[in-house]
Parts: sequence; C-alpha cells; structure tokens
Amino acid sequence: MDTRFTGVIPPVITPFKDGQIDLDSLDHLVDLLIDAGVNGLFLLGSSAETAYLTDAQRELVVTRVVDRAAGRLPVLVGAIDTTANRVIEHARRAQALGADAIVAACPFYAINDMTEIAEHFTAIRQAVDLPLFAYDVPVRLNGKKLAVDMLVRLGGLGVLDGVKDSSGDDVAFRRLVAANEEAGHPLVLLTGHECVVDGMLLLGGDGMVPGYGNVEPRPYVELWQAAQRGDWQEARRIQDRICAGFEIVFVPQGRSADASGIGAFKTVMEAQGTIASNEMAFPVRALTGETKEKVVAIAREQGLI
Amino acid sequence: MDTRFTGVIPPVITPFKDGQIDLDSLDHLVDLLIDAGVNGLFLLGSSAETAYLTDAQRELVVTRVVDRAAGRLPVLVGAIDTTANRVIEHARRAQALGADAIVAACPFYAINDMTEIAEHFTAIRQAVDLPLFAYDVPVRLNGKKLAVDMLVRLGGLGVLDGVKDSSGDDVAFRRLVAANEEAGHPLVLLTGHECVVDGMLLLGGDGMVPGYGNVEPRPYVELWQAAQRGDWQEARRIQDRICAGFEIVFVPQGRSADASGIGAFKTVMEAQGTIASNEMAFPVRALTGETKEKVVAIAREQGLI
Amino acid sequence: MDTRFTGVIPPVITPFKDGQIDLDSLDHLVDLLIDAGVNGLFLLGSSAETAYLTDAQRELVVTRVVDRAAGRLPVLVGAIDTTANRVIEHARRAQALGADAIVAACPFYAINDMTEIAEHFTAIRQAVDLPLFAYDVPVRLNGKKLAVDMLVRLGGLGVLDGVKDSSGDDVAFRRLVAANEEAGHPLVLLTGHECVVDGMLLLGGDGMVPGYGNVEPRPYVELWQAAQRGDWQEARRIQDRICAGFEIVFVPQGRSADASGIGAFKTVMEAQGTIASNEMAFPVRALTGETKEKVVAIAREQGLI
Amino acid sequence: MDTRFTGVIPPVITPFKDGQIDLDSLDHLVDLLIDAGVNGLFLLGSSAETAYLTDAQRELVVTRVVDRAAGRLPVLVGAIDTTANRVIEHARRAQALGADAIVAACPFYAINDMTEIAEHFTAIRQAVDLPLFAYDVPVRLNGKKLAVDMLVRLGGLGVLDGVKDSSGDDVAFRRLVAANEEAGHPLVLLTGHECVVDGMLLLGGDGMVPGYGNVEPRPYVELWQAAQRGDWQEARRIQDRICAGFEIVFVPQGRSADASGIGAFKTVMEAQGTIASNEMAFPVRALTGETKEKVVAIAREQGLI
Repeated sequence: MDTRFTGVIPPVITPFKDGQIDLDSLDHLVDLLIDAGVNGLFLLGSSAETAYLTDAQRELVVTRVVDRAAGRLPVLVGAIDTTANRVIEHARRAQALGADAIVAACPFYAINDMTEIAEHFTAIRQAVDLPLFAYDVPVRLNGKKLAVDMLVRLGGLGVLDGVKDSSGDDVAFRRLVAANEEAGHPLVLLTGHECVVDGMLLLGGDGMVPGYGNVEPRPYVELWQAAQRGDWQEARRIQDRICAGFEIVFVPQGRSADASGIGAFKTVMEAQGTIASNEMAFPVRALTGETKEKVVAIAREQGLI
Repeated sequence: MDTRFTGVIPPVITPFKDGQIDLDSLDHLVDLLIDAGVNGLFLLGSSAETAYLTDAQRELVVTRVVDRAAGRLPVLVGAIDTTANRVIEHARRAQALGADAIVAACPFYAINDMTEIAEHFTAIRQAVDLPLFAYDVPVRLNGKKLAVDMLVRLGGLGVLDGVKDSSGDDVAFRRLVAANEEAGHPLVLLTGHECVVDGMLLLGGDGMVPGYGNVEPRPYVELWQAAQRGDWQEARRIQDRICAGFEIVFVPQGRSADASGIGAFKTVMEAQGTIASNEMAFPVRALTGETKEKVVAIAREQGLI
Repeated sequence: MDTRFTGVIPPVITPFKDGQIDLDSLDHLVDLLIDAGVNGLFLLGSSAETAYLTDAQRELVVTRVVDRAAGRLPVLVGAIDTTANRVIEHARRAQALGADAIVAACPFYAINDMTEIAEHFTAIRQAVDLPLFAYDVPVRLNGKKLAVDMLVRLGGLGVLDGVKDSSGDDVAFRRLVAANEEAGHPLVLLTGHECVVDGMLLLGGDGMVPGYGNVEPRPYVELWQAAQRGDWQEARRIQDRICAGFEIVFVPQGRSADASGIGAFKTVMEAQGTIASNEMAFPVRALTGETKEKVVAIAREQGLI
Repeated sequence: MDTRFTGVIPPVITPFKDGQIDLDSLDHLVDLLIDAGVNGLFLLGSSAETAYLTDAQRELVVTRVVDRAAGRLPVLVGAIDTTANRVIEHARRAQALGADAIVAACPFYAINDMTEIAEHFTAIRQAVDLPLFAYDVPVRLNGKKLAVDMLVRLGGLGVLDGVKDSSGDDVAFRRLVAANEEAGHPLVLLTGHECVVDGMLLLGGDGMVPGYGNVEPRPYVELWQAAQRGDWQEARRIQDRICAGFEIVFVPQGRSADASGIGAFKTVMEAQGTIASNEMAFPVRALTGETKEKVVAIAREQGLI
C-alpha cells in the first residue's frame, strides 16, 4: 500500500466569482486545508464540479493548487471523462502539471461490463506513470458499481493503487477491505462517506475523501487520529458532531443534487470567509434567500462560522 | 418546423480497423446510406461510439463525412459531453467543420434539474448559430428524462429545433407530439426507436433516427414513405420485417449493452461488405465465435447478406 | 387464442363511499361499460385498488359484478398476492364466484428469477380450471419484467392463455407479438396502455385493458373497431382525443401515483355521475380543492361531463 | 424506548420438509437461538420466506414458536401484506396467538407517499394493542425508503416503537439515530445489516436483526456484548469473522436473490444439523450440487460445521 495516500484527503471544491474560477479563494482554501492537517488533496473530483469545467479550467486548477501546495502534501487529480482514451488525455496533462496520482471513474455514457472496465483501468495505468485510484460513484454513473474482485485483482496486478469508494454500499466496502487484506493489501481504500467515516475506519478503511471536509477539515483530521489510536468512542463523538453540521445538505428543497450538496458547502464556506462567493458553475445557481439563511443558521449553531 | 430534418436520419456508426477509424469504410457507408434515400445523417451519436472517441477522432469523422456527403443531405452532429461549456466547444468545432445542426444531451455525471437543463440548452443554442436538437436518452444518462413541457417551451423560444427521443417512453413521446402541435409545431420530433417506428409515425412523429438503419437503411426509407401516404398496414409489414432482423441485438449473452447492440450491427455490416471489420472502440471487443455466427445467420435468413 | 378475451376489457375501478365499497355505483359502472360495448370486464386489477382490499372486499366485488354482468360478457378476475400459494387461494375463490379467467402477476416482495416465475404460473394454472393471464406491471413489482420467451413458452404449454402488458416497454410487446405469432398465436396479448393503444393494435395487439376506459369506455370501443377495419388514421384520431382527456392524471402535483392516477379517474367519474364519490381506499385521500377543479375542467373541456 | 426489544433479535427462518413446514426443525432452531443468548425472536420476516406462506402457515409458525419460546424472550411477528387493512388482519391474528410486538412494512404493490404511509402505520397501531416496528426494506418494496422525519414523528406520537432498518442506507440510519436521540429516543433502532453491525452499533443502533444470525447466533451475541462494553476492536474482530462466513451468500451464480441468500443460510443449517433440510418454499429450489458443496466448504473452513 502506498502510505502517502492514507488519512484525510478532501476533494477540493472549485470557488467561482463572476463566472470565473476564483484563484485567490482557491489558494486560501488550500492553505486552510493544509493548516488543518489533512494528508493529501484530491483535485477535480465530483465536489470540484469537474464535470462543468472545460479542459482549460481543469488545467488552471491543477496548476494553481500544485503550485500552492508546493510539495507540502500529495496532490491527487481526477481525470473525469467518458472513456479510457479521453481519460488518458486528462491524466497526461495532470501528470505534466505535477499530479502525484490519478483518480479515474469507470466509463460513463458508454455502457460497459466489468471485463471492459478492467481493460479501461489497465489502459489508463499503462499510459500514465502515476499511481491510479478507481473512483466508485454509481449515483453519477448510471448505477454502475465496481466489482470487489475486479478491483482487488487489478490491485494485485499493479494497475490500481487504491479505490475512492463513494458508492454508499458499506457491505461491498467491507468485502473490499477483507479481499484487499487477503491479497496483501495492495490497495489504499478510501471512503467517500462524510457521515459514516467512523464506521468505515473501524472496519478497516485506510482513509477518507469527504466533500464536507472543505467545510470542516480539522474534525476529520481529529476523527482520523482518534481512529488511529483506537479511540472509537471519541471517533464516534467527532463524527456525530460533524453529521450535525452536514445536515446543511438536506436544507434545500426542490433543488438539484449538485445545487443542494456542493451548494450548501459553498454557502457555509462563503460565510466562513474561506471563499469569496457561494457561486456555482453554470448552469447551477447558488443557494439564496431563505434556503441560504437556514444553511448558515445551522452552521452557526454548530460553531462553524 | 425545420423540414430539412424530417424523415430517415440514421445515426452513422464509426467503423474501426486496427485501432483506427476506418475512413474508407466510413465513406462507403455514407454513400450507401445516401443511395438508400435517407434524408439526413446524424454523426457522433451513441451508435457512433462517440463516448469512446477523442476530440481529434470526432473531428476526423465530421470532416470526412461532411466532405463525402458534399451537401447531398443535411448532416447533424452530436456534441456529447458532460455540461454546457464543454458541449459548446464540441458544437463550435462541428459548426466550423460544416455541421448543419447540433444534437446535445442533458448534462451527465453532473446531477441537474429541469431548470438547470433548460439553461444548459439555452447556453448551447446561444453559442452556436445552428439548429439545436435535444437528445433524450435516459438509459445512458442516469435515468434522466427530459420533461415534455420544458422541451416545448424551449421549442417556442427558438432554443430547440427538435428532439431525438431515445427514451423508449412512448406515452411521453405522444404527449410531446400533442404539446408540440398545440404550440404550433416548433419542434421536429424524431424517434430513436428501431422497432416501433410505425407506431411513432402513426401518432405523429416527424422522423426517425434508427441505429439499426446502418444495417437496413432502405426499409426504413420505405417505412417512412408508406407512413407519408397513410399506408399503415404496409408500414407495419415493413416494420415487422425490420424487427425480425433487429433480433441480432438479443443474440449476445453476457456481453455489455454496447458490445451487444452496436457490436451486432457492425457484425452484419462487415458480412454485408459495408465496412471492413466489426471492430469496436477500445475497450469493447468485437463479437466473435458462435455469437458472431448466430448474428450472421439471422441476417442471412432475413436476406440482409 | 381464446377469442372471448380480445377487444376492450377495462379494469373496473372500485367505488367507495363512507369507507365502504359502493355497490350501487359499481352496478351502475358495470352497466355503463357494457352499454358502451366493451368486450369483457377485468376485476381486481391495479386500477381497482385491489392491493387495498381485504379478502372479504375482493369477494364482494366479484360476487356483485358477476351477478350484475349476468353472462353478458366474460369477467376476468385478478388474483393479486405475493406468491403462488396465496394467489391460488384467491383464484379458487374467484372461480367459485363465477370468474371466467384469472389474471396473476409474478411474485412480489419475494425476489425470484424467470425459472421460478414460470413455476409460479404453472402451479396457479394447475390449481384452477380457468384460463390464466400473466399480468406484467414492473412499475408495481420492483421493476421485474416478464421475459418474452418465458411467456410464449408457457403459452405453448397451455399454462398461459394471455398477457396483460402494463410494462410500457413497447419493444418488448412487439417482440412478444412476433414470438407469439411464430408459435401459432397461443396467447391473447392485451396492452395496458391508455395512450398508445393505436400503435399497439397496429403492431398486432389483440386488445386493451385501459384503466382510463372507466372514464371513456365508448371511444376505446370505437378505437378498437377502427383498428379492426384497418382505419388507422381514424384510430389515431380517436386515440389523440382520448389522450387529451387522459391529461387529468398529470394534474395532481405532490401526490402519490395511486392518488393521482386512479384519483383523477374517480374524480371525473364522480362529476359524470357514474359513481357517487371520488373517495379512495384508505389511506389514500381523494383529490380535492384546486386539483379537483382542474381535473374536472379538463374533462369538461373534452366533453366528458 | 422499550428495552425488551434491544440487542440480538434474529429473523427466524422457516424450515421446510417435503413441502410442509418442518415444525421439529423449527423447535430445534428456536431452542438453539435462545441457548445462544439472543434477546428476542422475529418471526415472519423476509428471511422466513413469509411472502411464500399462506395465512394458515403463518399462524402455524407463530403458534409453534410462541409455545416453544414459552416466555423466555419476546417474540416479534411480521405482518407482511400489501396495505393497512390486510396488515391489520395479520396483526390481530398474531396478537391473538401471543405476539409481543408487530413488525409492518410500508404498503407495496400500492404506490404511496410518506403522508399515506404515516396514516398506514397509524391505522395499524390503532387496530392492535402491541408495540409496532416499521420495517424498512426498499429492495423488496419497489425502492421505497421510509423518511427519517416521518419515522421519528410517529415515534414521538407513540405510533411506532421501533424501526427495523434493512435499507442498507447507513447515512439515513445515522440521521435516524441522531433525530431519534434528539426526540428523546422513542424508537428502538435495529439494523438489518449482517455485515456492518459493528459500525451501526458504534453510531448508536439499539440492536440488530441479522438473517445470518440463524447460522451463527452466538457470535452476534458476543458482538453485541463487546459493543455494550465499548470494546470496538473486539466487535470489529467478531464482525470480520462473521463476514468471512457470510460469503456463502455470494456463492450461488445465476440464481434468484431469495434462492441465494436464504438458500445459503439453510444449506449451512442443514449441514450443521440445525434443520433437517435446506428445502425452500415453492417455487424456489434448494441449492444443490457444486453450489451446495462450495457453500458447505466455506462454512466448514469457518468452523461453522
């Protein structure tokens, strides 16, 4: 297992202002996350609104963050596109810009089976000389769930170095942990959970990639530390506290999933002064009015502002 | 309604040979489709394996086909990408290369609501000076179905010129036909059905985009003509004949949807001599062995070879 | 094919008043449907809110309608329960009460495969000496869709006499029609569509079971007659007219599917004087207020009241 | 919170022999579970193949187990049917036969919203003078997930006494735990997880209803005890051991979910001598041949036989 990629690795959100990526806010966020003690940064994930970014914007984000991080911690970069050949183009650009690892999903829009998906990851790994993480996020990928045996087999072959599991399928994650263990632990297994990280670490997860970690990085670091020393009661206490704040994502009614989730994060971050605006990538509109007020009220009640 | 885009508009498949796009086969296919009497060509749709193509490959296809078609019929080009800003880049390239219309899906990987999706189409239309078709294909898009009222509203506003409906939701299609009629028929409504085109024309569809039309273009043209003159019994007879051939897509067992459907089309087209090879885009493997034989046997029985 | 079960066979709704089944309204409805010229009656289907009825209530409905119909037309009875042994108990009671055929769904709550489902239908048919129809309604059955080859095989074996297809999967219905034809047409194939009946008859359906036929039985009879004589233009015209009325089911917002669909039917039927009240089975509340007014307004506009 | 219903409450499976319920095996199983130290018995759940049982068979099971249990521990009884009035009939029979609590799912086959579902539970509770548990099992119920706020509200009103959560949605379970806590803990929250019980207890669950507990009751009791004393490392160790045995359910290939899961449990229980046969309720066939051998081999390797 590549221990550089364990612990707390938040998926860094992308701040916007007046329709442009807000680089100053991005710098600020990076510093804040590093100061909080996170172990790595994951750029261009779902929380980064990557699907909404042009190639030029994606390069801008990677360039800026790699520069700002300045080697203080490893930087993983998502290469989000429909199929291998397109992913490889992103991955090569990320490598050229200084990424320490690549994170790639299974094909989408395309409809493939596990054999084809294994070839997909293999081709990506062969094209780029960097550690490769598989990104398992069925809710965005037509429900496609990566198979445990395929992942562990690719781990043993050196194709995959880890998995970012955002499937919400905790039974599958436990089976993955067990199969990975039996295979000699080739894969770093990161949970994308924001709310059951304590449970996922208890059952053997190697780290976490919590979108909500943009809002509250320090508690996740403390949760990780508590888990490391086996203090599960404390881990649970911290997680419960975090979950009380995470309730912000359930405030927006009648809005899209992206507007609600990432939108709520950005709204608190704006109120915290972490970023200049809660603006979202086009065509998603930022939370406003009463919804915004309720989100901020929860955050204030939780001492986040 | 823009009558240039009615009738039979097959989504042109992309032939491969030795890992490269087989341009000679593509030329041959284009000629064959035009000779069969189709009314337009739709490039870079799902049947074209567009999700598997790099930007360079996409440009190659458009350039070649526009050149080969030489104005003999309109060429619609798919701009398949996750969100508006990325779609616009594809659409502008397509326009520069001579496309007559753009076909765009709703966002994917991103998770949006109908308000955001309306903005998405509006932005695309504003960025490109070409007719715009909405591509409704929930099976590839996380189940997202375009709402009838949104489509007709955008039709009335001049944002959308048509819809390619591959949803398989025939009740929604009929409601779309009725609402479009009531609004003065701003939209060209094309069914993506291969097997119930007769029914969809009977209820008022303006044309069809059948992937299987790559294999049997002429019968679809005849079906269209029969429908035009109100000879529904004949339309049904032709459609039944077509469906008997379409059974090829149900032959492959234990293969992915892309391998089975497009794979079966290509396998017959190879046997017909239309294309040089039934090769698929990486990582999908072509049909082989017994599966291939069964597919070819059905086609032979149906007189397609 | 058992020709007694072709044509228009509406699924009779169950009128309620003050929490009880309203038998006078049920009588009235039966007379009205028969007078409109329907070919059969289907009792205890989904539109009858059968899932909400106790065994005693189910028996009451069958007893009353069989008595009222008095042999004027065949009466099919749904035996809706989770698995074969429970279905058989319902089916035997229905037979004892004078049913002419049994309609049974695949198992639900239970999670079975096609082999098990075939055994399920076989056991039901062996236990009851009546024609058996398979009821294909995935939207209520966890998405389970009955396989074409299984249905036709059971048709050939004399297990099934027909299929009521409420799957909305028109490609599968056409494949079923073709496979049934090739097998010598053992099955009566009835579409559960309310809105694409013209298309389903064009492609070879043997009849229809439209829930909305409770509201407008006569037009469905005319549609059937037009189709019988091959006048598809007229069939389409009638179907379009019907669809304009069927828009009532899309009026209710924020209500459950049962409340919206069956609720809208009952609301118009109450206004027509067909039934005494638009009351629904507990715990579904009848449509009221503005929603009710809008439903009635559409019906009035369409000349249904 | 009603503390009688915390801890380990396995859903007792239903043994069959020669097409009949095997009452001797059922007695044996009940004794074995009680001797293992479980805190309660849950009859007529999904694992009991209740959907396959006639009313007479259901009564037989309840009568026999209540008699055998003889007050040694509380007996919860599932009242599984489509809607409230039908559920109430089952619940009343269960009460008459000596049940200590009723477990009821939301309506199925019917399609309802949360308002209607709340009325459903309220009516059931009013009709039967016993504690009521809501059974949340979307995988069998068309995907319907019970809403956290509805559950806690009904808990506060005294309608619900607990929830059996088999949704696999661990984020929702944690939100339920938190909301329940804030409301004064009216609900007993039981996880239906077999494989992440440690995590669910860590985050605050009050007990478990593990189907696999029929195979290995004692380890679940030990897991519960470890959790009670805060020894999470031991809880995890036990859970991992359990999960290694639970792999039996993934052995069957190409079989239905019911045949695979319950079928694998019964296969090991037969080999253990707990029950006389691994026979399943009609029409599900027992595991045989190589599949059976593999299941038994895993169990043997894990020391379960």
